[in-house]
Amino acid sequence: MTWRSVIGRGLCDDGVVAEDRHLSECDWLLAATRAVITIVKPVLEETILDLISSGVFLEFEVLGIADLGCSSGPNTLSVISHMVDTITMACQRLHCKPPEFQVFLNDLPGNDFNTIFKSLPSFYHNKLMGGNSNNRPCFIAGTAGSFYERLFPRKTLHFIHSSYSLHYLSQVPKGLENEEGALNKGNIYIASTTFPTVSRAYYEQFNHDFSSFLKSRSEEVLAGGRAILTFMGRRTEDPSCDENCTAWKMISLALNDIAQEGLIKEAQIDSFNLPYYAPSAAEVRRIILEEGSFNLIRLEAFEISWDANRDNIETDVSSLDSLRRAKYVTKCIRAVAEPMLSSCFGGSQVMNALFCRFTERVAQLYSKEEPKYYSLLITLRKI
Amino acid sequence: MTWRSVIGRGLCDDGVVAEDRHLSECDWLLAATRAVITIVKPVLEETILDLISSGVFLEFEVLGIADLGCSSGPNTLSVISHMVDTITMACQRLHCKPPEFQVFLNDLPGNDFNTIFKSLPSFYHNKLMGGNSNNRPCFIAGTAGSFYERLFPRKTLHFIHSSYSLHYLSQVPKGLENEEGALNKGNIYIASTTFPTVSRAYYEQFNHDFSSFLKSRSEEVLAGGRAILTFMGRRTEDPSCDENCTAWKMISLALNDIAQEGLIKEAQIDSFNLPYYAPSAAEVRRIILEEGSFNLIRLEAFEISWDANRDNIETDVSSLDSLRRAKYVTKCIRAVAEPMLSSCFGGSQVMNALFCRFTERVAQLYSKEEPKYYSLLITLRKI
Repeated sequence: MTWRSVIGRGLCDDGVVAEDRHLSECDWLLAATRAVITIVKPVLEETILDLISSGVFLEFEVLGIADLGCSSGPNTLSVISHMVDTITMACQRLHCKPPEFQVFLNDLPGNDFNTIFKSLPSFYHNKLMGGNSNNRPCFIAGTAGSFYERLFPRKTLHFIHSSYSLHYLSQVPKGLENEEGALNKGNIYIASTTFPTVSRAYYEQFNHDFSSFLKSRSEEVLAGGRAILTFMGRRTEDPSCDENCTAWKMISLALNDIAQEGLIKEAQIDSFNLPYYAPSAAEVRRIILEEGSFNLIRLEAFEISWDANRDNIETDVSSLDSLRRAKYVTKCIRAVAEPMLSSCFGGSQVMNALFCRFTERVAQLYSKEEPKYYSLLITLRKI
Repeated sequence: MTWRSVIGRGLCDDGVVAEDRHLSECDWLLAATRAVITIVKPVLEETILDLISSGVFLEFEVLGIADLGCSSGPNTLSVISHMVDTITMACQRLHCKPPEFQVFLNDLPGNDFNTIFKSLPSFYHNKLMGGNSNNRPCFIAGTAGSFYERLFPRKTLHFIHSSYSLHYLSQVPKGLENEEGALNKGNIYIASTTFPTVSRAYYEQFNHDFSSFLKSRSEEVLAGGRAILTFMGRRTEDPSCDENCTAWKMISLALNDIAQEGLIKEAQIDSFNLPYYAPSAAEVRRIILEEGSFNLIRLEAFEISWDANRDNIETDVSSLDSLRRAKYVTKCIRAVAEPMLSSCFGGSQVMNALFCRFTERVAQLYSKEEPKYYSLLITLRKI
């Protein structure tokens, strides 16, 4: 396993994303994602070139690519655009005819595919076609469904990409309560006060889900095909170790703050558990080995500051005071967390109070340390 | 060319569509479509069995199917469901392992794919999977774009289906006005008062579009692959012949009625032209022959009463008076026509008046004759 530490840079030199510069909630969310894409980009290129130069797929006229957990936003098409360009240029260098690409964008059935589809005509026109549909090298389709099940017919894919999705579990782990009630009181995810039985239940759910993911993909990807997967991970083997300071821990603390104020009940926190798991590198390696369909080619950990990409979003970057940074982080995290929290804890009034306390907690943290997201980047080859 | 005349029966014995029994605008629109599906069903089965028994595709593990102009509603998945069931049963009879299906549902980027995708989990569960995703024989994806351009990579499809979409042109024909103004005054489509130059422009646009459709599909469909296409046609070679009494003619008359009342201007009617063309069987045959990528296996014309399927929608079917039938036809036609007309002629007030006059016109027609939709059904084999 190799290490990287990056204060994120944006992908704002990319024509696809550059059009969208207004500072919506979406932008705050995208900031961190863009920083990840920047780190993944050279690995993506290396993996693609490895795939092409292996010669395995030179016989194919069509290359099947799937982006799993594609979401719906400006970044959705920029990854695909980059992959198609990279493969096309590699083929030109090797003097072989570029394939046509069948690209599947996947997310859950609730994802806003309509918005993606409405952006396709300008994507094809500007990026790929030059106005002639018969020169179109890339055909994009949407596939709605859980990537923990089969999504595509057998042996139809050559390349799998998934960015920041596999840490979401298919469901909240079972066994997080017994006859006396909730087992993970005061927390919404694994924390230092979490019982080992709760941590174990979380690991078992991740093990089940990630194994199902690999098994499903093993039927869909041709032998020799590649996967490049990025997701949240953790530094230590012990998931309850305090060193794994995550944004979810700050959310837990802020929830307890507003419970103290009487805005929500403590029992609500006790009974709520995130369908999320950040595995260690060793856990990921073990699951891949046990499932047995893929060779692990690369396993890297990297870190991104919680306010990575801030200079691409905010106009005034001179101020680096804790509160300002905390406010930025709050906007990023709120875009992800609020949809998961509001149905259990309450609407905008409760959420406003929660994220006020969250900002205070993060500002306190910034006065002591430099918090970072810890991520895992793996590349796989289908056996 | 063979002929059929059918007073439509519904597809209401189909589990997929039976759930949706409330009488929305959508239902009125679907009534006519269902009647068409009922007619097409045996031809679809025959074409599929012909494809399977030809043995051409028994070597393939995956069968590619595209439904072009799929729309978004209860019928969207029922056609696919029927095709997959038919192929699976045919394979069982022939003692060969059924393939997996990659199904592409296509419509323009403005189509509501989100609603289709949200219905997929129950579709997979009830119809195909039996709860086990690894037994899923059918993988559905959405493809947004015009079927007059390339939509899929080359040689990836085995079967094409398109129901009631190919009569919509990619654009209003050029050349429908000269320096003195609009050439097709008082009409919104070809009528008895239409100049031959206007009819010619309409034919040229259809020729261009249908040829582009065939050319694009010829790159995507494997040799031996089949297409089954249904669309509006016309009885006579002369497109301006009064015998081709279409619902659009009644809309034209009703528009002229409300222009007389001062609700809209005559110039609005003069300048509006439908992006629609109902070809003759001879025209379709000629274009297919000239394009040269497909053999024409079957060319049938069939007719459906304007109020086909009424007994599946209305609870009281005893009354067959002209006004009642005209009201039913109005609901069906309005669902299709209003989105095309309202942006040019005005909002709900104008549309209400228009479809009141339309109902009167249709009731008058019913007192004299039995109006029917005239459709063409063709099956093709890729050379």
